[in-house]
Amino acid sequence: MSEYTAPLRDIRFVLEHLADLDGVAALPGFDHVDADGVFSVLEENARFLEDIVAPLNRIGDAQGSVRNDDGSVTTPDGFREAYKAYVDAGWNGVAFPPEYGGGGFPWLVGIAMQEILTSANMAFSMCPLLNQGAVDMLLHHASEELREIYLPKMVTGEWTGTMNLTEPQAGSDVGALTTKAVPQDDGTYRITGTKIFISFGEHDMSENIIHLVLARIPSAPPGTKGISCFIVPKLLVGDDGSLGERNDVTCMSIEHKMGIKASPTCVLSYGDGGEGAIGYLIGEEHAGMRYMFTMMNNARLSLGLEGLAVAERAFQMAVAYANERKQGRAPGAPAGEQSSIVEHPDVRRMLLTQRASIDALRGVIYANAAAIDLAARHEDDATRSSCGELADFLTPVSKGWGTDLGVELTSLALQVFGGMGYIEETGVAQHVRDARIAPIYEGTNGIQAMDLVGRKLPMRGGAAVADYLGSIDATIAELADAGDDLASIRGALTDGLAALRTATDWLLANGSNEPLDALAGATPYLRLFSVVTGGWVMAQQALKATAQLAEASGADVAFYNGKVVTARFYCEQLLPQAAGLVPAVTATNRDLAAAVF
Amino acid sequence: MSEYTAPLRDIRFVLEHLADLDGVAALPGFDHVDADGVFSVLEENARFLEDIVAPLNRIGDAQGSVRNDDGSVTTPDGFREAYKAYVDAGWNGVAFPPEYGGGGFPWLVGIAMQEILTSANMAFSMCPLLNQGAVDMLLHHASEELREIYLPKMVTGEWTGTMNLTEPQAGSDVGALTTKAVPQDDGTYRITGTKIFISFGEHDMSENIIHLVLARIPSAPPGTKGISCFIVPKLLVGDDGSLGERNDVTCMSIEHKMGIKASPTCVLSYGDGGEGAIGYLIGEEHAGMRYMFTMMNNARLSLGLEGLAVAERAFQMAVAYANERKQGRAPGAPAGEQSSIVEHPDVRRMLLTQRASIDALRGVIYANAAAIDLAARHEDDATRSSCGELADFLTPVSKGWGTDLGVELTSLALQVFGGMGYIEETGVAQHVRDARIAPIYEGTNGIQAMDLVGRKLPMRGGAAVADYLGSIDATIAELADAGDDLASIRGALTDGLAALRTATDWLLANGSNEPLDALAGATPYLRLFSVVTGGWVMAQQALKATAQLAEASGADVAFYNGKVVTARFYCEQLLPQAAGLVPAVTATNRDLAAAVF
Repeated sequence: MSEYTAPLRDIRFVLEHLADLDGVAALPGFDHVDADGVFSVLEENARFLEDIVAPLNRIGDAQGSVRNDDGSVTTPDGFREAYKAYVDAGWNGVAFPPEYGGGGFPWLVGIAMQEILTSANMAFSMCPLLNQGAVDMLLHHASEELREIYLPKMVTGEWTGTMNLTEPQAGSDVGALTTKAVPQDDGTYRITGTKIFISFGEHDMSENIIHLVLARIPSAPPGTKGISCFIVPKLLVGDDGSLGERNDVTCMSIEHKMGIKASPTCVLSYGDGGEGAIGYLIGEEHAGMRYMFTMMNNARLSLGLEGLAVAERAFQMAVAYANERKQGRAPGAPAGEQSSIVEHPDVRRMLLTQRASIDALRGVIYANAAAIDLAARHEDDATRSSCGELADFLTPVSKGWGTDLGVELTSLALQVFGGMGYIEETGVAQHVRDARIAPIYEGTNGIQAMDLVGRKLPMRGGAAVADYLGSIDATIAELADAGDDLASIRGALTDGLAALRTATDWLLANGSNEPLDALAGATPYLRLFSVVTGGWVMAQQALKATAQLAEASGADVAFYNGKVVTARFYCEQLLPQAAGLVPAVTATNRDLAAAVF
Repeated sequence: MSEYTAPLRDIRFVLEHLADLDGVAALPGFDHVDADGVFSVLEENARFLEDIVAPLNRIGDAQGSVRNDDGSVTTPDGFREAYKAYVDAGWNGVAFPPEYGGGGFPWLVGIAMQEILTSANMAFSMCPLLNQGAVDMLLHHASEELREIYLPKMVTGEWTGTMNLTEPQAGSDVGALTTKAVPQDDGTYRITGTKIFISFGEHDMSENIIHLVLARIPSAPPGTKGISCFIVPKLLVGDDGSLGERNDVTCMSIEHKMGIKASPTCVLSYGDGGEGAIGYLIGEEHAGMRYMFTMMNNARLSLGLEGLAVAERAFQMAVAYANERKQGRAPGAPAGEQSSIVEHPDVRRMLLTQRASIDALRGVIYANAAAIDLAARHEDDATRSSCGELADFLTPVSKGWGTDLGVELTSLALQVFGGMGYIEETGVAQHVRDARIAPIYEGTNGIQAMDLVGRKLPMRGGAAVADYLGSIDATIAELADAGDDLASIRGALTDGLAALRTATDWLLANGSNEPLDALAGATPYLRLFSVVTGGWVMAQQALKATAQLAEASGADVAFYNGKVVTARFYCEQLLPQAAGLVPAVTATNRDLAAAVF
């Protein structure tokens, strides 16, 4: 079975038709970007990742990263070499700004590359992913001096970044963290404390590790308002960028996890050796939480992408197996012969459910990335603002729904394999185990739901969500002009939107007076909002594919027809499940409060 | 965190009020059985399993069973001793017939004990579970001579049985098996072939292993009609029951699985050493598949029970953690203090979703077991027949829905733990991994769905399913008499039933003409059928608990109130999701057929 083939045709369709690559490429600062250039970069990128990174996925799981007695961490065989090749080829910097050596490509293009990287090897991908978050933070909030010291090597990936938020008593509740940062006369800080769940907090793939650490200065107010953010390099760095002595940060242990075993999840101890690790303040004191929030949309989108990427890889395995494995006789097949299981309707349902959900999710996530690019760079204030709101709504969908679907779809892929799926050597079980972390980290999906209900719905007193729902109305109107072929899609999306409106109106009417009722309904609301958003995207897919069909020939006809079939399946068979969630949204907190646990 | 406490109060409620223990105990042959006796047996059983078997669950996963170079298999530390204690205490035989040394308890009681055993340690439980299937087969189909030789020691558990169906090319398609059985002059057969996925096919917990092997006699017709079933003991057994020479069956390897690692999943080779392993025919030639089918309801019910049991244990862990873990501040909690996470509405939703689904599933499975007892033993022909039909409908629900919920609910339990849930030492991830096998084995859930649509719906030309739906009508009528408190339950069940009727009528009208359309809709139909059946059971729970409340006092008031809250939550918030499945049932095979994979 081939390891993994990047779904470039599908990605191209989404970039061209659902995520407005042309519009993004026309933004200021992207003069060197055009669609053809993007697709040839993606092709080359895919080849590299398919050949070099994807084959390491199984061994990464089987070996895992290992902590040695001296506190160093050894990644699985081949990871160092593959990472070096990744850096040498320049892949790390493609979507970073040219000022620091990056390729200056839009975030949207970065997301496409990140999908392929993550499908190739989710555990491996976490090292560049965390580094990307750290680069982002420094770009936006660090002084020019710090940026010049750290960014060039982080942009190439020669150095990797980490994000240090969590402590044993401070997970979702970041404000409860107690790591201390004591100011020194020379302008530096001394950091002491213990951080947990630090991905790639120690490893052997880069020459230095740049930890971004949330900590509390002694004078700080309590809670999230008293958190500052520091650079704490593993090896101290001279002003000229030269590597110096070892800083006082130690990997005490790494976790034994259900999945992503090649990604070392570290307990890091700061200042165990004496006065504290040396740290450099990013931006202003007590502003760390605010800085984190500015990066949140990007980070959460990346997590949703993990759900998509792992589901895509598991789906490819399931399709290959379903074509290869013979078992039973499908209705209509010749007597006395076993059919490929792909001939059985129930197996086809499993495969088409995966494909349709993946298509919907890819559309959502890429549109989300495009909205982030547009919100950051568009020349028109109103467009920036409306795209920012769109990104605000899509982000909890990408993260919450994307990661939930990652779990559900990989499990469905495993089911296609029957008993073989449960055997680790087959490889699909790893995807199920890997995918299971994503609904948890970077804000649990419960927190995503509360974000949607508590922060996003009230934007502009409900006018922002009204605009969002109005955009779905506009797509329904387009469907009305598109003829009978798309009538069932139009009907299903109309019903789904009506259900979403009912739930939204209820939350807007009741949420501010009765916050417990709104919180009680948040999770089913996020699912409802997501499934309908997926329907919206699938309706656009059907419209665009139908339009392309008018002029398509050859293999393109089958491709666009497939896109219409997938969109119709989603809207006719998956989207109707959304309406059944309304009662859970509007049930109030009564029974949740009455239960005794 | 305590390991596991058997939910005896919940089990008692189900036995008394939802599964008619009194009615079962009144059946012929159960003169020695009454409710009080049953509950004291269950208490003692629970104590044993909590103390001796439950603590071995983690080590079983960490060590796994290991195959040694000589082909023997070593189970994890403590398993041998625990199994011996289990046998010595007489637990294995409680639900087997007294003629062979069993306790003669109803299957319903056996199911309750099996729930506790499986919660305590799913991997361990598979040894008695497979043995039970083998005992069942011998009881119903073997000659008196074979029964007298094998059953006494299998009933005590001193010997354990296995079921050998699967071969590499013959999984769901059992008829494709090729293992050969050549008749000998002395009336025995010589067996040659390779079987895979044989749970506890080799191990060190019992002095002998009795393999029941499906094989093909040279003269046999092709397909399932040419399959015979043989006893192939690991050690040959004299007519006096004495152990003799080693038979020619070898464990070639064991699988590395995602979960249930302590349960050795063996590749068994028969007849590798020469003329074949010695086997003894059970019943008649070519009747093996028919014999298997008579055991299917029991076996599939046991699998559904695995979903329930593992979900229950994971739920208990989640409740304990939610009470213990402090994080964030719940609405209304004092400023400056972290709340237990059980105070957060979203966490309560996760917990109540687990509890409600577990209650519904336990009700379904125990009612299913009671129906099997009644169908086997009731003096009245019509009752036997109607209970047999009830069991026929409930079995795919128990197996298909029960095992799917096992996966979904353990995953929800893990989510309650946040990042800690992903760490293997916490223990909840093991339950997710263990639970994932159950939707696959003993007939994948896709096969359960096809069984429901293809075999069960057509019973008596649709009159059987009409009776089933009519029973739900009767419960709705009872709810109408029960006053306003249960009005929302009545409304939700009425709507759910209407949706189920729509889908059922459509399948009855179209399924026989267009079998592909029926197969295409089978999986969403099973889910729809199951969720509504769960609502039916929860409505009964609400009725019975309400009735008990009239006379309850002390802790009972809280208990019965809790049962009403749980039932209402299920019906108001989970049951409405059923109706959204109707479009997927009635969509026809069109899009599934049009998709290209």
